[in-house]
Amino acid sequence: MQETHIGLAHGNGGRIMRELIEQVFKPALGNPLLDTAADAAALPPLDGELLITTDGFTVRPLEFPGGDIGSLAVHGTVNDLAVAGAQPRYLTLNAFLEEGLEIAQLRRLAASIGEAARAAGVLVVAGDTKVVGRGECDGVYLATTGIGVRRPGLQLGMQQIRPGDRVLVSGPVGEHGAAVMLARESFGMRAALHSDAASVLPQAQVLWGLPGVRFMRDPTRGGLATVLHEIARASGCSLSVQEQAIPIRETVCSVCELLGFDPLYLACEGRVLAVVAEEAAAPALSALRTVAPEAALIGAVGEEGAQVVLETRLGGRRLLDELEEEPLPRIC
Amino acid sequence: MQETHIGLAHGNGGRIMRELIEQVFKPALGNPLLDTAADAAALPPLDGELLITTDGFTVRPLEFPGGDIGSLAVHGTVNDLAVAGAQPRYLTLNAFLEEGLEIAQLRRLAASIGEAARAAGVLVVAGDTKVVGRGECDGVYLATTGIGVRRPGLQLGMQQIRPGDRVLVSGPVGEHGAAVMLARESFGMRAALHSDAASVLPQAQVLWGLPGVRFMRDPTRGGLATVLHEIARASGCSLSVQEQAIPIRETVCSVCELLGFDPLYLACEGRVLAVVAEEAAAPALSALRTVAPEAALIGAVGEEGAQVVLETRLGGRRLLDELEEEPLPRIC
Repeated sequence: MQETHIGLAHGNGGRIMRELIEQVFKPALGNPLLDTAADAAALPPLDGELLITTDGFTVRPLEFPGGDIGSLAVHGTVNDLAVAGAQPRYLTLNAFLEEGLEIAQLRRLAASIGEAARAAGVLVVAGDTKVVGRGECDGVYLATTGIGVRRPGLQLGMQQIRPGDRVLVSGPVGEHGAAVMLARESFGMRAALHSDAASVLPQAQVLWGLPGVRFMRDPTRGGLATVLHEIARASGCSLSVQEQAIPIRETVCSVCELLGFDPLYLACEGRVLAVVAEEAAAPALSALRTVAPEAALIGAVGEEGAQVVLETRLGGRRLLDELEEEPLPRIC
Repeated sequence: MQETHIGLAHGNGGRIMRELIEQVFKPALGNPLLDTAADAAALPPLDGELLITTDGFTVRPLEFPGGDIGSLAVHGTVNDLAVAGAQPRYLTLNAFLEEGLEIAQLRRLAASIGEAARAAGVLVVAGDTKVVGRGECDGVYLATTGIGVRRPGLQLGMQQIRPGDRVLVSGPVGEHGAAVMLARESFGMRAALHSDAASVLPQAQVLWGLPGVRFMRDPTRGGLATVLHEIARASGCSLSVQEQAIPIRETVCSVCELLGFDPLYLACEGRVLAVVAEEAAAPALSALRTVAPEAALIGAVGEEGAQVVLETRLGGRRLLDELEEEPLPRIC
């Protein structure tokens, strides 16, 4: 393959597309189940209940401090399975490429996908590539679908949540949102800020084994506040969280103050929010801290009300509204 | 939901996005397994070997004579499973939407997805929606992943192909490519031409039960000629096809002559190419014609050579080259 940039012919189904797949994607993602010449991949027998999830990725810029769209696409789908209580096993990958994309960059992204998949123990078993003309998509969009096997006996879900339950978070919130925002040149700011984008599988796994774990979610788009709202709405309960208990890095706070964002609404891509029974809170927090030292107990589930109350540092109470606008498009 | 067009807030993870999903996607796609509030969907036990496939869709225009990007996304993935010998069961769906997209059009596309899925007997079990800014994608891109169960005992694949085998096609070729091309206003032409986009499940199913069926594929991007090349390359055999035996509608021929395209390289989206043992050719053709009356025997697999020879109407022979350029970007 002599080309340095993606051309329309890389999507034509013929020789040039085959070479792109064989020379860029296959070396990065290759495994015995991935047959780039077949219509469909056969999966080895899976023992247990299958869970499936899918996600699209449009993050801008494609590479940002702490990650890139490739690893993000793997982690996003692995994380959805992990918080649902399933061991991720297989991924499929769709790539939408814009004519003019630098092939060297695509190689970096493919390598990043491969590395993240290996680290999470998942195999990419099928893929597809489409090329659109210049100006018809912004560089690269990805979509991943993941299949996992539910840990036997584990039934997590919002419907398990009861008044008195406790809310934990596995680390500082808002770092992905803040890091991506800063990485956009248009803000003209720089800070020592990395995205938290990562697999949450180790965090989820330590909780899978504990009694009293009701529900987990990774707070991505819309951040912590949005997940709390989903819980309040689904359970009909009122949630209260203590502002001073919520871990947020100082850099994230400063950036948010300067730019007028609330870190509670900024995306995380490597954190878990967990709701656990009251008596399970201490053991769950200890277990979580073995893999996520900054995990914290941040609040509790109250009685009826379906609202989210923030108990502020100054002793006041304010309702956390549901997100209405889109402050940061293309954050994931 | 009061809005008439997609805005960035439809991708924010909050209320407005939830309303879009509940009011547009859920009514069209709803089924007991689709829980739009969950991270992952649990699949009922599947009895047999699982096959998985994935595809992206960027067709322009979004709606064309004979189909739209919604039904195309379902059929494309259903068809990949069908030709691999698997009964399609579940789909996941990713939508990338451009700010400014008309919601009425999105509703039509969602309805079309739902209708195609019901007709093929598949359930959409998980989905994701991303919104990008104006000019950052062209309307709608979709990605679908499909899971199916292999018909017990059926092992189709290019490695089964032997010299002496026969090549069948289930109907006229090139109609999808020609119809989409004409639907692009830039050509300023109109003709009574519809895409062949459809589920090929009925065609594949009649062949699943027959002995001597080696391999099937739906000739999409790159058309019939590209699949023939893939077979020649994978089998190391020379393939010969008879020009006069290949069904092509007259309108497709006329459009191709006018615009300088070769219909053998134009995408089909509702045809099956099948390679069968010599003695299976007659029964396979009869079986195929019960559901696809225009099916035809078009050629045979020869000895070594890894090339594709067209025996022309005038008695000549010419090599069908592999596709080098991309004559029709965003055809699927």
